[in-house]
Amino acid sequence: MVDEKIIHDPVHGSMRLSGLVLDLVDTPEVQRLRSIRQLGLANLVFPGANHTRFEHALGVSHLVERLGSELKLPKRELNMLLAAAVLHDIGHAPYSHTLEYLMTDYLKKDHMELTGDILRGKTSIHEKGELQKLGKLHVPSVVDVLAKYKISPNEVAQLLLGKHRKPYLGQIIHGEIDVDQLDYLLRDAHFTGVALGMVDADRLLRTLIVRGNRLAIASKGIEAVEGLLTARALMYTSVYYHHTVRIAELMLANAVEFAIKRGGGRINRDNFYLLTDSELLERLGEIRGYPHEIVTRLRYRQLFKTAYVEERRELSQAEKKRILKTYSGWSRVHELQNKIADKAGVPHGYVILDVPIVDILISEPRLEKVEVLVLVENKLVGLSELSPIASALKKRQAPRYQLRVVAAPKYVNKVKKVAEKILP
Amino acid sequence: MVDEKIIHDPVHGSMRLSGLVLDLVDTPEVQRLRSIRQLGLANLVFPGANHTRFEHALGVSHLVERLGSELKLPKRELNMLLAAAVLHDIGHAPYSHTLEYLMTDYLKKDHMELTGDILRGKTSIHEKGELQKLGKLHVPSVVDVLAKYKISPNEVAQLLLGKHRKPYLGQIIHGEIDVDQLDYLLRDAHFTGVALGMVDADRLLRTLIVRGNRLAIASKGIEAVEGLLTARALMYTSVYYHHTVRIAELMLANAVEFAIKRGGGRINRDNFYLLTDSELLERLGEIRGYPHEIVTRLRYRQLFKTAYVEERRELSQAEKKRILKTYSGWSRVHELQNKIADKAGVPHGYVILDVPIVDILISEPRLEKVEVLVLVENKLVGLSELSPIASALKKRQAPRYQLRVVAAPKYVNKVKKVAEKILP
Amino acid sequence: MVDEKIIHDPVHGSMRLSGLVLDLVDTPEVQRLRSIRQLGLANLVFPGANHTRFEHALGVSHLVERLGSELKLPKRELNMLLAAAVLHDIGHAPYSHTLEYLMTDYLKKDHMELTGDILRGKTSIHEKGELQKLGKLHVPSVVDVLAKYKISPNEVAQLLLGKHRKPYLGQIIHGEIDVDQLDYLLRDAHFTGVALGMVDADRLLRTLIVRGNRLAIASKGIEAVEGLLTARALMYTSVYYHHTVRIAELMLANAVEFAIKRGGGRINRDNFYLLTDSELLERLGEIRGYPHEIVTRLRYRQLFKTAYVEERRELSQAEKKRILKTYSGWSRVHELQNKIADKAGVPHGYVILDVPIVDILISEPRLEKVEVLVLVENKLVGLSELSPIASALKKRQAPRYQLRVVAAPKYVNKVKKVAEKILP
Amino acid sequence: MVDEKIIHDPVHGSMRLSGLVLDLVDTPEVQRLRSIRQLGLANLVFPGANHTRFEHALGVSHLVERLGSELKLPKRELNMLLAAAVLHDIGHAPYSHTLEYLMTDYLKKDHMELTGDILRGKTSIHEKGELQKLGKLHVPSVVDVLAKYKISPNEVAQLLLGKHRKPYLGQIIHGEIDVDQLDYLLRDAHFTGVALGMVDADRLLRTLIVRGNRLAIASKGIEAVEGLLTARALMYTSVYYHHTVRIAELMLANAVEFAIKRGGGRINRDNFYLLTDSELLERLGEIRGYPHEIVTRLRYRQLFKTAYVEERRELSQAEKKRILKTYSGWSRVHELQNKIADKAGVPHGYVILDVPIVDILISEPRLEKVEVLVLVENKLVGLSELSPIASALKKRQAPRYQLRVVAAPKYVNKVKKVAEKILP
Repeated sequence: MVDEKIIHDPVHGSMRLSGLVLDLVDTPEVQRLRSIRQLGLANLVFPGANHTRFEHALGVSHLVERLGSELKLPKRELNMLLAAAVLHDIGHAPYSHTLEYLMTDYLKKDHMELTGDILRGKTSIHEKGELQKLGKLHVPSVVDVLAKYKISPNEVAQLLLGKHRKPYLGQIIHGEIDVDQLDYLLRDAHFTGVALGMVDADRLLRTLIVRGNRLAIASKGIEAVEGLLTARALMYTSVYYHHTVRIAELMLANAVEFAIKRGGGRINRDNFYLLTDSELLERLGEIRGYPHEIVTRLRYRQLFKTAYVEERRELSQAEKKRILKTYSGWSRVHELQNKIADKAGVPHGYVILDVPIVDILISEPRLEKVEVLVLVENKLVGLSELSPIASALKKRQAPRYQLRVVAAPKYVNKVKKVAEKILP
Repeated sequence: MVDEKIIHDPVHGSMRLSGLVLDLVDTPEVQRLRSIRQLGLANLVFPGANHTRFEHALGVSHLVERLGSELKLPKRELNMLLAAAVLHDIGHAPYSHTLEYLMTDYLKKDHMELTGDILRGKTSIHEKGELQKLGKLHVPSVVDVLAKYKISPNEVAQLLLGKHRKPYLGQIIHGEIDVDQLDYLLRDAHFTGVALGMVDADRLLRTLIVRGNRLAIASKGIEAVEGLLTARALMYTSVYYHHTVRIAELMLANAVEFAIKRGGGRINRDNFYLLTDSELLERLGEIRGYPHEIVTRLRYRQLFKTAYVEERRELSQAEKKRILKTYSGWSRVHELQNKIADKAGVPHGYVILDVPIVDILISEPRLEKVEVLVLVENKLVGLSELSPIASALKKRQAPRYQLRVVAAPKYVNKVKKVAEKILP
Repeated sequence: MVDEKIIHDPVHGSMRLSGLVLDLVDTPEVQRLRSIRQLGLANLVFPGANHTRFEHALGVSHLVERLGSELKLPKRELNMLLAAAVLHDIGHAPYSHTLEYLMTDYLKKDHMELTGDILRGKTSIHEKGELQKLGKLHVPSVVDVLAKYKISPNEVAQLLLGKHRKPYLGQIIHGEIDVDQLDYLLRDAHFTGVALGMVDADRLLRTLIVRGNRLAIASKGIEAVEGLLTARALMYTSVYYHHTVRIAELMLANAVEFAIKRGGGRINRDNFYLLTDSELLERLGEIRGYPHEIVTRLRYRQLFKTAYVEERRELSQAEKKRILKTYSGWSRVHELQNKIADKAGVPHGYVILDVPIVDILISEPRLEKVEVLVLVENKLVGLSELSPIASALKKRQAPRYQLRVVAAPKYVNKVKKVAEKILP
Repeated sequence: MVDEKIIHDPVHGSMRLSGLVLDLVDTPEVQRLRSIRQLGLANLVFPGANHTRFEHALGVSHLVERLGSELKLPKRELNMLLAAAVLHDIGHAPYSHTLEYLMTDYLKKDHMELTGDILRGKTSIHEKGELQKLGKLHVPSVVDVLAKYKISPNEVAQLLLGKHRKPYLGQIIHGEIDVDQLDYLLRDAHFTGVALGMVDADRLLRTLIVRGNRLAIASKGIEAVEGLLTARALMYTSVYYHHTVRIAELMLANAVEFAIKRGGGRINRDNFYLLTDSELLERLGEIRGYPHEIVTRLRYRQLFKTAYVEERRELSQAEKKRILKTYSGWSRVHELQNKIADKAGVPHGYVILDVPIVDILISEPRLEKVEVLVLVENKLVGLSELSPIASALKKRQAPRYQLRVVAAPKYVNKVKKVAEKILP
């Protein structure tokens, strides 16, 4: 009898795990994801949002299994995809995207590249001490399991980074319409209770096709894609870019940076991204002064308050350029927020500047080019030619505001005055 | 103790009915709606779509009750709205929108105007014989119930036709974001199983406001509105304008027209719109020849097949004008389809021409002007200024095709050849 | 390319139909089920309950497909089961179970035996006229399709009647835990909105097994079975035996019997069970006097009212015997209700006696013996040994009342007095 | 304008918080619940089960608001109930029920009594250091908020402990059918994905009544209650008493006891119950040897395995007595498990004995007496007189096994042999 587990998932129902997937799920790298919340600190606004990257990894692999059977993929490709599905997030730092800026700054890589490195055995996502403990329990690692199933770690890494020679394999996991977002949109809707993100997964899985080595959609799936794209856009605005979530996450990121710079605690530039959510918070809380206070504020939801906000509006090309020049990069934003703090006579760290629009502007040129391909009368056509919604969504600015300055409550008034003067 | 009923509704859960609503629900005009399917013949494609205008009327009144309590409307206005909610569809012909063209042609009014006439006691929605039977059972009519509660039928009619002096009252039932569509989108999604139509009703009900006598939305409700508008657009394409549904409904409409023109049966221009779905089908089935055959075809799903189709594409202003000129109006389309039939040597009625794009082009100028109002920093702003999705949706053509010719299976090939020659 | 259809089902999501199932679905026998409501007149109480036997047939075949793949059934058995699933209800009279008593009385068979006869080509479920119309359209019948796929109609009939030599095949469709009830419980819950009937179908499908030619359940499925059995019991009480539904259905059955006995209309003992819901109502409505009035009452929900009721309570063996003796059989009940009418000076047909408890008492001895089998440590054990819930459910009386007398509103008082005197 | 928040809850939709509830939610005592998982370590088996006592507290207060409005409770009583709803779980130790035995052993109180003490200001649920940090942020505590709204903490405590002079007030929160379980059953079903726990909350809230100062149910709510009771029973078996969950939780409890007994770490008998889930795990992980290993095992899901199990079966009165005598109390069980360990030559802590049946046997006599009251013809009747399901459920043993011995994998064989010898 095959070793098999049936797992109850609130999003996909009963899911059957066995063989490769089951073995991968048991590795420490994947088990670590149990302790990393999918939506960082969003649970401070959406109390149900305590779901983790672990469930998400299971969900994505479940969808790969369904899609693989629809597309009748060969066993070898299916296994590759299953591995990629289970492992695609193992390089995530605590609180998911919250510390991504710091990773780029300190590690010079994002969670995707880190995942690649872990797969190739170049680095580990566990501290040494942790590895020793694990050693005693003889738990196979991801590298062991891939070897057991004769799957090339390098190929999985390439697939995840979109460099596999068969483009559709990468696109199934990370493309314009992929199982990653299919799972996270359904899952985030289920756990936040935000009903904007309903997506006809059934139909999408049944209308995705492979043509000329690329993933595309049959024309009868167009509405399902339009639905998916809209759901994603609305979830960005309502959940992922919710200003209170951003404030909390920036408070945490600032405290981590402070701790790393000051040194002396149990957090440093070589380990902050390895920890789990609660380890990070615990270690940060041990450091007196600012980190300590921020942790208390996060634990008891005593967040900084808005001192100044610039609402979303249409931007000219010139304005976009100026914004990108002024605000792109963690260090530029930091300098500016410290400048405001200085002028307002407020200690550093108690004024935080949030410019979510920058993320959007950076990815805009890429988005302009990217296209869902639709099979119409046996030709592949870009979706935005067919759907005004799809092309409108490319122009839609997800965050409701361009720029926001927050501060500890007692400093709000002072900071407001300075911000109004200094900021454009 | 108050007379009260708790009704189980699969969309809104337990709904409590009492007083005015309960009395209205018991009238023959509203009970008739039990026999009129909400989505006409859509159940031939979506087998679950057997829900009726009756449940919808209950659902809309339930939403009015919730919205009324959110907006803290005075009792008098609430009662007016409740009456309007329960009664807004009593003027519907059998199979809902299927015979709307014939109503316009023969009655010179649509179901809304007819509803107004029924409310004012100018006409009845029941045949004489039916009224006599009802008389014996002493069932109060809508006019009786409105009188009992001292509600002006005229005011309700004005409200339904968008002419009430307090515009928000009309907009709550039929506006840009109204309880009518809130209910039908949720309900049609529930019964068809098409998961594109999920709508955050809770949030909408909690962010709708009244400003300057108009219905508007608070800015934190924008995403919920964007969700609603997209859901509606996608439901139009996937369900309401599904080509098979259109074919079936046009087959029925053609058969009804045939029966009226030929005369002699139990259907005529003075009663066809009063009947229920099954009465219409039954009476039509009694008429030998074409009507009889069409009824058999609908009962056993032996539908006409596509002979020619022109897919959706962007149209120039000139093209739009030409299309409107060539195809607007039931009689123009009929002439053309008969011309094709003649050339193909096929009896009239066995070729049907469908030009769904005309509906859209006719309503376009109106849609261009209509706007959801959003309250931003205490000013009302049009949504399309704020949301690229909203403005894109105005341009989106709901049906997937511009024009389609269908025919009885054995004539398809002949008709195809003629259509390819004649049609542009 | 294989001819294939994807159908949206609100209960099971996207369902794929092809080959045998698709061909069977297109037969007139199965299409007829579109016009027979799954829950008879329950929509008078649960307005959403307009779903038909047609969707149910699709749903059951979908579940068979899933279960077949879990059990790895051979193709031949799977096809047999799929045919049985799609066809199991084609012998239903209009309004499903409403006229079952009359069928037994006049036809001497129930809908299951009739289904068997139709399969074997012994009888038809369409009137002659209808068959002629269909003939012109060249639509293959069930017999044709079974022949095309080389499936023995006799074997399907045996399977449906529980007489197949491989008992598990019959049990999959009609057993203690079967796909028929799995579908109807989920479906009736979805369409009525009664949330008692939620059932973990996923888990059941994954824990059902075949042992010694019988269908059984693995022990880790026990809770799912307990859930199913309870759901069924509660749906019986809340929906299927709801007193208002019973009243409406008995009004209809009395009117049909009246029409058959009096003769002269378009309804007789040879055709009443062939009709669709609306045909029955239409033809009944043409018959002046009682049938005519009843139809009007049903159309406008002017139902008879309770004059006398005996609530549910524990019954002694002696009482049960007496009840069975006094009330079993349509004619005994009729005599008694006419006796009450006579004494009260009320015309026959305006007093109706409902003794739902009789159904239960008749099936009790059978139920006592029937058992869900559970595989515990490699032995099959009866569920009631393992689950106090299961054994309690055998004793639970579904209807909330033992006996009820209803009458046209104006006669209620008179009938009440007589009933109180005459009835025990 | 009133300060008000709209919170998205995946179970109840949009929930409005203001005034008392909003103020209570902001207290550190309630915010602490964000870090205590509702289902302890159940997420090791049901990956979605990361929901916390915090959401549950909000959900219960939402249900109280709805029930209060149905029952038309006076403002004073409603406020009392709202306070009780938000606060009813603030005395929970980390991982909810996992350490309940240790609390009884060391504190001589359970979480309910501790809640009472916190309310009355007798003790705090925060460590001193934590209180100092909070002091700096000037966050009002529960005691402050109750004082602000002039609510007697003592009365709330009495209500929660079932000692309020108006019994229905206590029963609404903790009775036979109460809002606490209504919320947790719906919530646990939503987050685990186990579909057995569906409950018709709408109907229950609309049929609960107060009679003679006691909470009861109208007779038309009986099926909803039967559904609730069954759902609860099945959730106990499938989720709360799932053997893997039990194993994990006992591993944790054993490690905590070990840490307390050995001393020297940051956990002791005066603080273990104050911590949050992650604080407990972090501190435990710092202690070398056994606690350290157990934490690693829990983090990476390397659980102890079953060495011996006695399945569920009917027990005689004599057997029940013997079991109670042999196994009741944490220390008795511990002695026994250590005895097995000694005989097997295994270090203490690596053999764990689980006797879930004891909990059931202890509460049985209480359960026998407790009754849901139903209003039938104006008299209150015990539900078990009316419903065989209800009385069967009293006899149903929730856990699937009576007794289980687990051990670290490498010791399983040795322990098996000893257990088979020693245990009855």
